[in-house]
Amino acid sequence: MEKVILDGKQVSQDIRKKLADRVETLKNEYEITPCLATILVGEDPSSETYVRMKGNACEKLGIKSEKIHLSADIDTEELLNTIERLNNDASVHGILLQHPVPSHIDERKAFESIAIEKDVDGVTSTGYGQTAFGFGKYPSCTPAAIMEILHYYGISAEGKNAVVVGRSPILGKPVSALLLNENATVTTCHSHTKDLPAVLSSADIVVAAIGKPQYIRGEWLKEGVVVLDAGYNKGNIGDVDYDSCYQQASAITPVPGGVGPVTISMLLKHTVDAAEESK
Amino acid sequence: MEKVILDGKQVSQDIRKKLADRVETLKNEYEITPCLATILVGEDPSSETYVRMKGNACEKLGIKSEKIHLSADIDTEELLNTIERLNNDASVHGILLQHPVPSHIDERKAFESIAIEKDVDGVTSTGYGQTAFGFGKYPSCTPAAIMEILHYYGISAEGKNAVVVGRSPILGKPVSALLLNENATVTTCHSHTKDLPAVLSSADIVVAAIGKPQYIRGEWLKEGVVVLDAGYNKGNIGDVDYDSCYQQASAITPVPGGVGPVTISMLLKHTVDAAEESK
Repeated sequence: MEKVILDGKQVSQDIRKKLADRVETLKNEYEITPCLATILVGEDPSSETYVRMKGNACEKLGIKSEKIHLSADIDTEELLNTIERLNNDASVHGILLQHPVPSHIDERKAFESIAIEKDVDGVTSTGYGQTAFGFGKYPSCTPAAIMEILHYYGISAEGKNAVVVGRSPILGKPVSALLLNENATVTTCHSHTKDLPAVLSSADIVVAAIGKPQYIRGEWLKEGVVVLDAGYNKGNIGDVDYDSCYQQASAITPVPGGVGPVTISMLLKHTVDAAEESK
Repeated sequence: MEKVILDGKQVSQDIRKKLADRVETLKNEYEITPCLATILVGEDPSSETYVRMKGNACEKLGIKSEKIHLSADIDTEELLNTIERLNNDASVHGILLQHPVPSHIDERKAFESIAIEKDVDGVTSTGYGQTAFGFGKYPSCTPAAIMEILHYYGISAEGKNAVVVGRSPILGKPVSALLLNENATVTTCHSHTKDLPAVLSSADIVVAAIGKPQYIRGEWLKEGVVVLDAGYNKGNIGDVDYDSCYQQASAITPVPGGVGPVTISMLLKHTVDAAEESK
């Protein structure tokens, strides 16, 4: 059996090359510099790293990165005011609120306050609903990345059994919706699923989005399965046990270098899309 | 094995009894008469029947029914204007646009224009997204009815394998979301599903929402399954083959008298909810 390593860096490079041209055109022909505003609340070191990575990726491509760093002791109201200001700032095309915010802040309320046309990270319930109904512009970036990888490698979801393990609002739910829109038969599993190995045994496509290192084992999967690992745990470890899953898979994303880099590319793409919409 | 016929008329009666009290209170203590506006476009006889049934159910309960009947040759703009007027009319608490509208009208655009706080029929993508994220006020009425029947009969979805056959925006998708929110492992099937009997064979709960008479056969189901038939085809026939499914089921909804009457009750409930919210 031919085995394909789904190389996220390759997919990402191709996307960013095309984006660079679009950014050039926006600047030269329309005097628009795409701009992503990122909001970081507090001092969580991994969140700081993520925001910095996203900012750097923007700047490399000529996208302006407006970094807003708020102190951990602000309240929900102050965060809402910041978002409101960015909603009304015509020079900002996309808004990303880095998850998680300190627990005294109503994160969901903050997400919901992001204007739908600037929700390039796909966190609002309206954005999710539009995605599920087939006309969403900016699905959450990791689900969008997973679909992009499938498309890039010519793997069709049509009529396949897709099993998504995880049901978070920015990962499990939207990737289930996107796979359903491409005519997969979709099963969404989670911590209350009784017999995960039994459900996985009929999967043609598996999306791992659990947040538990090396949780999914190859013994649970059938031969020829496509494995997409959206997990990213301490020490660069995914949610699937790579070695055993590799044995069974016809195609698999590595961690790192799989879904991760494409996720950032989708954020960049959505920001450029939003800038083009603002023309 | 004990077999339960899930009696929608019984469930419905109980809901409407409680609603009658709430309508009384709204009238006597707040001088608010809950009001549902229904919009019918064109002369489709079944649509006329549905709208009349809904209007009658409202009036029996003391809910005002404002019936708007537009001619088949209006354009999308005129329909949007009508909805806009109702959105701005404080005496109207719920708006129902009867599906389908004539094909030259952009039905989705019309649905989307209904104000979220008046979307008692659960047709907007925002309403769907909120439902899927667990804070939607008015899920579509048939999915809400299915959950209500399960609750009434004390059937928990927790950890069960639920298979939904159908993926429409007002039925298959939202009922999948609601079952997932109650911790079922949910599989959504549709016309592109390759081997429906195989998928159904592990189902603990089946929701039939296909629109094909007597499509689902008992031979495909395991013993003890709970069968919820949301189908309603010509001649009062559901989407499941009742006799063979009855044999396998521990609980099953009849057609008629199952999901149907509860669906209308949920519409009434949402209208009263919306009227209470307007206090």
